[in-house]
Amino acid sequence: MKDLEHLWKSHPLDPEKNRAPLLACIEACSACAVLCGACNDACIAENDPASIRGCIRATADCADICLATLRILLRLSATHAELLRSQLRTCQTACEICAAECDRLHSTHPHCHVCEEACKRCSQACWELASC
Amino acid sequence: MKDLEHLWKSHPLDPEKNRAPLLACIEACSACAVLCGACNDACIAENDPASIRGCIRATADCADICLATLRILLRLSATHAELLRSQLRTCQTACEICAAECDRLHSTHPHCHVCEEACKRCSQACWELASC
Amino acid sequence: MKDLEHLWKSHPLDPEKNRAPLLACIEACSACAVLCGACNDACIAENDPASIRGCIRATADCADICLATLRILLRLSATHAELLRSQLRTCQTACEICAAECDRLHSTHPHCHVCEEACKRCSQACWELASC
Amino acid sequence: MKDLEHLWKSHPLDPEKNRAPLLACIEACSACAVLCGACNDACIAENDPASIRGCIRATADCADICLATLRILLRLSATHAELLRSQLRTCQTACEICAAECDRLHSTHPHCHVCEEACKRCSQACWELASC
Repeated sequence: MKDLEHLWKSHPLDPEKNRAPLLACIEACSACAVLCGACNDACIAENDPASIRGCIRATADCADICLATLRILLRLSATHAELLRSQLRTCQTACEICAAECDRLHSTHPHCHVCEEACKRCSQACWELASC
Repeated sequence: MKDLEHLWKSHPLDPEKNRAPLLACIEACSACAVLCGACNDACIAENDPASIRGCIRATADCADICLATLRILLRLSATHAELLRSQLRTCQTACEICAAECDRLHSTHPHCHVCEEACKRCSQACWELASC
Repeated sequence: MKDLEHLWKSHPLDPEKNRAPLLACIEACSACAVLCGACNDACIAENDPASIRGCIRATADCADICLATLRILLRLSATHAELLRSQLRTCQTACEICAAECDRLHSTHPHCHVCEEACKRCSQACWELASC
Repeated sequence: MKDLEHLWKSHPLDPEKNRAPLLACIEACSACAVLCGACNDACIAENDPASIRGCIRATADCADICLATLRILLRLSATHAELLRSQLRTCQTACEICAAECDRLHSTHPHCHVCEEACKRCSQACWELASC
């Protein structure tokens, strides 16, 4: 995210004021989307994927929502505060649900533990940015 | 969407009960994403894109959110009702904001009028599905 | 797609010349993404998803690629012909692979048959547009 | 990407053999999508966006294609080698085109320079992974 901070220095709307929580949330959404995608694939590759459909579903939804949030956060022109907050709330919800699903599996499926931690960080980052 | 209805007949979780509002919302999200994408591009291609950045931003966000909603609605396994409602609310908000931006421009930019109508239909379809 | 054709009439770059194959490809990519998403979810919901991972993977990839193609085709400003052709080729390949995976399963999983038909139509539409 | 490497240790298909080029490509696609999204928004926010539509278009396409590539690379089950190569080739092409557009603007728009560097790294990473 050093590069993004560097890019913003010449962005006509350099988000100087909220830079730290915005960068943190972009980084968290990006990492969460990647780890949810990888955990989803690992779950499908397990011996008995039928038994962990809750996690397969939660990681798929969470990855989609984190990527949509990421795209939206990268736009600084003409931001609509109400939509941003609604998206952040939905993203936080998706991350909390996914973290809960992963938590139930993490003793037997260690990949879920890595995903769970990313979801918790992303949920927190969305909450913090929405509170700015 | 006839094909989707046909596909669902052999889906292990055929959504018989809520089929009509679910299909309507999937169709509305799909159409809205397409028309927002096209309207966004038309706005950028206009003589003075700098003057309509509000619409460029709103159509971009709305397309992203409609596509995420679409992906989520196509999943029937292990749906989490709270997340679904939150996503539908966010999608409705995005559509309402985009419709309002398009409404301000539609006399001079007829493409915005087509987009506005799609946003209104999608907002309504999200609201109806969330009320089921 | 009537709405998209209508929207384009006031697009500064109305694609009059290639309108038919472009509209056909946009419609085919949109339908294919929806049906691949639904078929992917149906496969995961089956009794023995572990036995049909080839189709789960192919539908997931095909949906992602069709949605990326869709977004790109909706942009008419400053199109780069080489990139468009490369994307259409990749999309055609994804559709052919997915159709072949679905073909192996369609007698036991009728939802795969609906998906297969959509993939074949999309593959054809990509080929036709790339040949313009 | 340390977390992804950690997650893969419990993935049933841990990609031990090609881990380094795969991780590098995932990281490069993720960074390139983020920086293209931010550069696209910065271009739209400039005083005269109409004069830089080539870069607005190239960054939008490149972000979409990098995100599709990212999703595909995160899946390890039932990978189809031909599709993977085709996607990597398309992604490399998108990155090269975007780097060239950014290169023309980077003296006057420093954000394009940051984006250009990310595109070049991603193009290289796609090429290296496709050569494995």
